[in-house]
Amino acid sequence: EASAKVIDGKKVAKEIRDEVAAEVSKMKEAIGVVPGLAVILVGDRKDSATYVRNKKKACEDVGIKSFDARLPEDSTEEEVIKHISGFNNDPAVHGILVQLPLPSHINEQNVLNAVCIEKDVDGFHPLNIGRLAMRGREPLFVPCTPKGCIELLHRYGVVIKGKRAVVIGRSNIVGMPAALLLQREDATVSVVHSRTKNPEEFTREADIIISAVGQANMVKGSWIKPGAVIIDVGINPVEDSKSPRGYRLVGDVCYDEAIKIASAITPVPGGVGPMTIAMLLSNTLTSAKRIHNFK
Amino acid sequence: EASAKVIDGKKVAKEIRDEVAAEVSKMKEAIGVVPGLAVILVGDRKDSATYVRNKKKACEDVGIKSFDARLPEDSTEEEVIKHISGFNNDPAVHGILVQLPLPSHINEQNVLNAVCIEKDVDGFHPLNIGRLAMRGREPLFVPCTPKGCIELLHRYGVVIKGKRAVVIGRSNIVGMPAALLLQREDATVSVVHSRTKNPEEFTREADIIISAVGQANMVKGSWIKPGAVIIDVGINPVEDSKSPRGYRLVGDVCYDEAIKIASAITPVPGGVGPMTIAMLLSNTLTSAKRIHNFK
Ligand SMILES: NC(=O)C1=CN([C@@H]2O[C@H](COP(=O)(O)OP(=O)(O)OC[C@H]3O[C@@H](n4cnc5c(N)ncnc54)[C@H](OP(=O)(O)O)[C@@H]3O)[C@@H](O)[C@H]2O)C=CC1
Ligand SMILES: NC(=O)C1=CN([C@@H]2O[C@H](COP(=O)(O)OP(=O)(O)OC[C@H]3O[C@@H](n4cnc5c(N)ncnc54)[C@H](OP(=O)(O)O)[C@@H]3O)[C@@H](O)[C@H]2O)C=CC1
Repeated sequence: EASAKVIDGKKVAKEIRDEVAAEVSKMKEAIGVVPGLAVILVGDRKDSATYVRNKKKACEDVGIKSFDARLPEDSTEEEVIKHISGFNNDPAVHGILVQLPLPSHINEQNVLNAVCIEKDVDGFHPLNIGRLAMRGREPLFVPCTPKGCIELLHRYGVVIKGKRAVVIGRSNIVGMPAALLLQREDATVSVVHSRTKNPEEFTREADIIISAVGQANMVKGSWIKPGAVIIDVGINPVEDSKSPRGYRLVGDVCYDEAIKIASAITPVPGGVGPMTIAMLLSNTLTSAKRIHNFK
Repeated sequence: EASAKVIDGKKVAKEIRDEVAAEVSKMKEAIGVVPGLAVILVGDRKDSATYVRNKKKACEDVGIKSFDARLPEDSTEEEVIKHISGFNNDPAVHGILVQLPLPSHINEQNVLNAVCIEKDVDGFHPLNIGRLAMRGREPLFVPCTPKGCIELLHRYGVVIKGKRAVVIGRSNIVGMPAALLLQREDATVSVVHSRTKNPEEFTREADIIISAVGQANMVKGSWIKPGAVIIDVGINPVEDSKSPRGYRLVGDVCYDEAIKIASAITPVPGGVGPMTIAMLLSNTLTSAKRIHNFK
């Protein structure tokens, strides 16, 4: 029975982290500069705290200096922005990341806009998104998760140019920038979302599917064109009495069905997930290199 | 024999200009402010000079004050930007438009970036494009030609939400923003370009086609789904010995074939063409209202 190649995001992410580590130490030796990443966490959501801890750990592993600001849940918008300004002006900081979601009394847009564009390693600033959308313009940073999706395609030798691609989901942080990236690489892109009547009509024609929806097992085997390449960004908990936690994580794509039809597919977990942090480290390194004009 | 409704851009553009004229005089009476549009023309391309003249005339007709700077072909980038800065700081100017193309020794990106975003009535600033791409963000201005396309759909009662739309072409000034606008209105959008292998496979499934390619009669009748709505942005000269000028203008869509299959279609000329200037006037009015906080 046919079986798709499994795209090993964990392995690729490790390769990228190793590459970043090598570059970081080269830079330190050559010009004495260590890239620095600042993370701002407001409130005490457990999941956010875990993400921040993981990012910190990942920085340490590759030699990037990490800075953090942990602010109480009831911080004002001004206080959060004051911390951002501090990092904007700190020459040891080359990347600034605001852990989302913010408490609901804080305006996310105002806070994200305060990050200076040269340090916007998340790539969420509208100026970066605008440049990503425009031909002949280059964003300073590309959002980490969609960049990770494209990096997986590249490292597995998947041709994008001239192919039909479908992106399911159009969020600012994954779907929309993923579609813009595929289009920049000359795929013909269709964007499917919650108002699309027959999503399967689009996916069935696609050579490349990127799914970033957040619906467990939405994409069935019958939705997939034989030989398609599938990047599954979704991370969805489903009940599982056999798991000690009572649940396990699955993607948007019905993996067991897809693996028989696709030519390549990312697993969940172990696919796109590990790529996000790897891309964040890579963006931080890029930023430090740019700021210090180090090639 | 079936015949599509002809979408009369000339008539709609006239309606919009009348609406703008009424608002302009209301504003003048209420707060004594007259909206102002500055146009910068570098060099002496005949077509550009004609466009600028038409814009000036259109401003006068609706009561918008027009300013212009005509700079010689050999102006430096700094000189052009100096004029833009002057208009940026001039409180009588609410919109600034740089007539493209610029002479080749001038960097278009640097010049366009110099227009302050509050007066970027062309909507070409990457910050405006970024906001257009992002959910939950609002651009200050939407580029005039694609805005005109959507306005025609609205005024003719064409439902966009949930429909399949194809945009042919992905330029910064027409195709790309048109696709973003359709997506904002909840169409499922596919963007076709020169690297797309079988463009007709996409158009045949589309309820709405916006074509902005610049290829005479590329979209044949057989490419069109019965009942589709077609917005033809293309303006292409074709030889015509019967015309006194030796040529006439046609769109990207084979009009004679399309009119038998589509449910509605814009003619060329007289479709999208007149809408561009109407939208420019409307953007200039919006800008003046915003700057003076006039509702
Ligand atoms: N590192 C990683 O691997 C990351 C993984 N994720 C995961 O990716 C998934 C998506 O995340 P995110 O983009 O932030 O999610 P959002 O909720 O912001 O966006 C979801 C998108 O999916 C669309 N959608 C929802 N339901 C359907 C449906 N039935 N059919 C088609 N489209 C639908 C929505 O459409 P509409 O716009 O119309 O509402 C929306 O555009 C989540 O599972 C998340 O956990 C996210 C970020 C990083
Ligand atoms: N007021 C009005 O009515 C206006 C009318 N226009 C007209 O609209 C047309 C497009 O203008 P503009 O967007 O500036 O043009 P551009 O030349 O900048 O862009 C043309 C686009 O069409 C794509 N394309 C070219 N050939 C093909 C093909 N064979 N199949 C599919 N796609 C193709 C190109 O693809 P790729 O990106 O791969 O190169 C590109 O994205 C022109 O005719 C212009 O005169 C323009 C502005 C205003």
